[in-house]
Amino acid sequence: MTDRPYVAVCGAGVASEREAAWAEEVGRLLAEAGAILVCGGLGGVMDAAARGCASAGGTSIGILPSDSRSGASRHLSIAVPTGLGEARNALVVRAADAVIAIGGEFGTLSEIALALKTGTPVVGLGTWELAKGGRAVEAIERVSDPEEAVRRALDLAEQ
Amino acid sequence: MTDRPYVAVCGAGVASEREAAWAEEVGRLLAEAGAILVCGGLGGVMDAAARGCASAGGTSIGILPSDSRSGASRHLSIAVPTGLGEARNALVVRAADAVIAIGGEFGTLSEIALALKTGTPVVGLGTWELAKGGRAVEAIERVSDPEEAVRRALDLAEQ
Amino acid sequence: MTDRPYVAVCGAGVASEREAAWAEEVGRLLAEAGAILVCGGLGGVMDAAARGCASAGGTSIGILPSDSRSGASRHLSIAVPTGLGEARNALVVRAADAVIAIGGEFGTLSEIALALKTGTPVVGLGTWELAKGGRAVEAIERVSDPEEAVRRALDLAEQ
Amino acid sequence: MTDRPYVAVCGAGVASEREAAWAEEVGRLLAEAGAILVCGGLGGVMDAAARGCASAGGTSIGILPSDSRSGASRHLSIAVPTGLGEARNALVVRAADAVIAIGGEFGTLSEIALALKTGTPVVGLGTWELAKGGRAVEAIERVSDPEEAVRRALDLAEQ
Repeated sequence: MTDRPYVAVCGAGVASEREAAWAEEVGRLLAEAGAILVCGGLGGVMDAAARGCASAGGTSIGILPSDSRSGASRHLSIAVPTGLGEARNALVVRAADAVIAIGGEFGTLSEIALALKTGTPVVGLGTWELAKGGRAVEAIERVSDPEEAVRRALDLAEQ
Repeated sequence: MTDRPYVAVCGAGVASEREAAWAEEVGRLLAEAGAILVCGGLGGVMDAAARGCASAGGTSIGILPSDSRSGASRHLSIAVPTGLGEARNALVVRAADAVIAIGGEFGTLSEIALALKTGTPVVGLGTWELAKGGRAVEAIERVSDPEEAVRRALDLAEQ
Repeated sequence: MTDRPYVAVCGAGVASEREAAWAEEVGRLLAEAGAILVCGGLGGVMDAAARGCASAGGTSIGILPSDSRSGASRHLSIAVPTGLGEARNALVVRAADAVIAIGGEFGTLSEIALALKTGTPVVGLGTWELAKGGRAVEAIERVSDPEEAVRRALDLAEQ
Repeated sequence: MTDRPYVAVCGAGVASEREAAWAEEVGRLLAEAGAILVCGGLGGVMDAAARGCASAGGTSIGILPSDSRSGASRHLSIAVPTGLGEARNALVVRAADAVIAIGGEFGTLSEIALALKTGTPVVGLGTWELAKGGRAVEAIERVSDPEEAVRRALDLAEQ
């Protein structure tokens, strides 16, 4: 299954109700589209996305910061403990052809930045806004719902 | 599927006929036992193990040294490009509850050593022999066929 | 010299004249204060900071993304090729007690984010501005010149 | 100082008296030759090598598995906490033009293997012996004292 699109879903380990609902729907839609879901493997947005993916019979992988599988979302198809701590964020991004960022704290911001640095497209749902010198830097493609997030991510992943 | 045993199959990217046959059988038996197969994701022993796993409907993950999925075995369920080069050997080992080493060159030796360093059991099929000061160091559990390799790896993974 | 403050200077590999002048002055002041300079080891802000550090007889380390020392700033005391690509940004941050961000592109943004995620203080000189939901997130301590940057970084590194 | 030879000294965190004496002498001789010493930054062989290096005014770097400098040898010029656990062994090897292995346990064996995998020469002083299929694999250049170890490592580092 190395020819399917791989899409990372990034967001905080503790999610608001709206973020969790978005993430679950994104996971479900990715599975229905035959994409493989990549995430950081923990709770909040990651767990909700894995749950949505599993509900549609999809395949998901969680790339964990710790060196054991304890703490991993139980909805993942595969959990990979890396023992790399936050350096694993670079691996989540590298494994993906496109990134969907949902809300998020500083960990998510690092994943957005690493993706943009390496030319991986980023679609954002209620996530960080970036600026320099008072001017907005519009590098994240902003969308307003899970359907649009998945559609854009899959389009961008193919390019 | 975080509660299943994860077993890494390590070996060279170019395998002898015997090694490839062993690896394919090991992959098949791991899938039949419900284990998840972890490997380095490239050719030779890795590709043969993934092929055997797929033939029995199992789940496999390849943790690649490069930063793209090109070059990955097409028999993998999931391919994760890490961009870490040989440092990814540490991740192959960390993702596993037990390691089966089949033949192998220096990369496999590094995986054996990293596993032994971190207390992950290693089962060996025609692989490296270790000694210090002229005395054998019997840290690898030696087996003589794929059935025994898988049986011992699964036993050791549970402990 | 494990008891000295370690301060990372982060910025783009191609710097404006003003950024390079800032970085050189920051490197010089860190050396005069007895701090060890950590950076990504390449050109632009990294090279200028290493040059300033060397001009005052200081010690600097460059943590490189590539797997060889070619391309490293020749002003570094020590250059460490990691072969980790952009994942090395996490190591630049981990090696530091405080981070000074000067200008910067997406790589610098990832270092800022990784530092904030792990509780390492970040001082900013003409760098990224962060917001969520239209509201500024004031996590970077903004300063207006190299003296203030170094003074604040050293204060924060001690806490 | 990117044009000097970088030589890694690998060995166990708890060293015998003979190993510690060898490591200290190796560190001293590397410093006298103008080489930069790389090591894993902890106790035993690593600490002894750093101490010898410091005694001759040399420069050393310790690449630590943990995410803080606590536990680092106090004789190091620079200590880099990586938070990568045993995956840092790959970085110790990558930073070096040649490796000197002194005694050692499984961590050292992984460094020997990673070096040989990537074509970095390995000089051994009372360290691991390798074999496959009952035949010795003579990939480590065996020496009998610190002078010879340093002389051969520097010769091989230049090639």
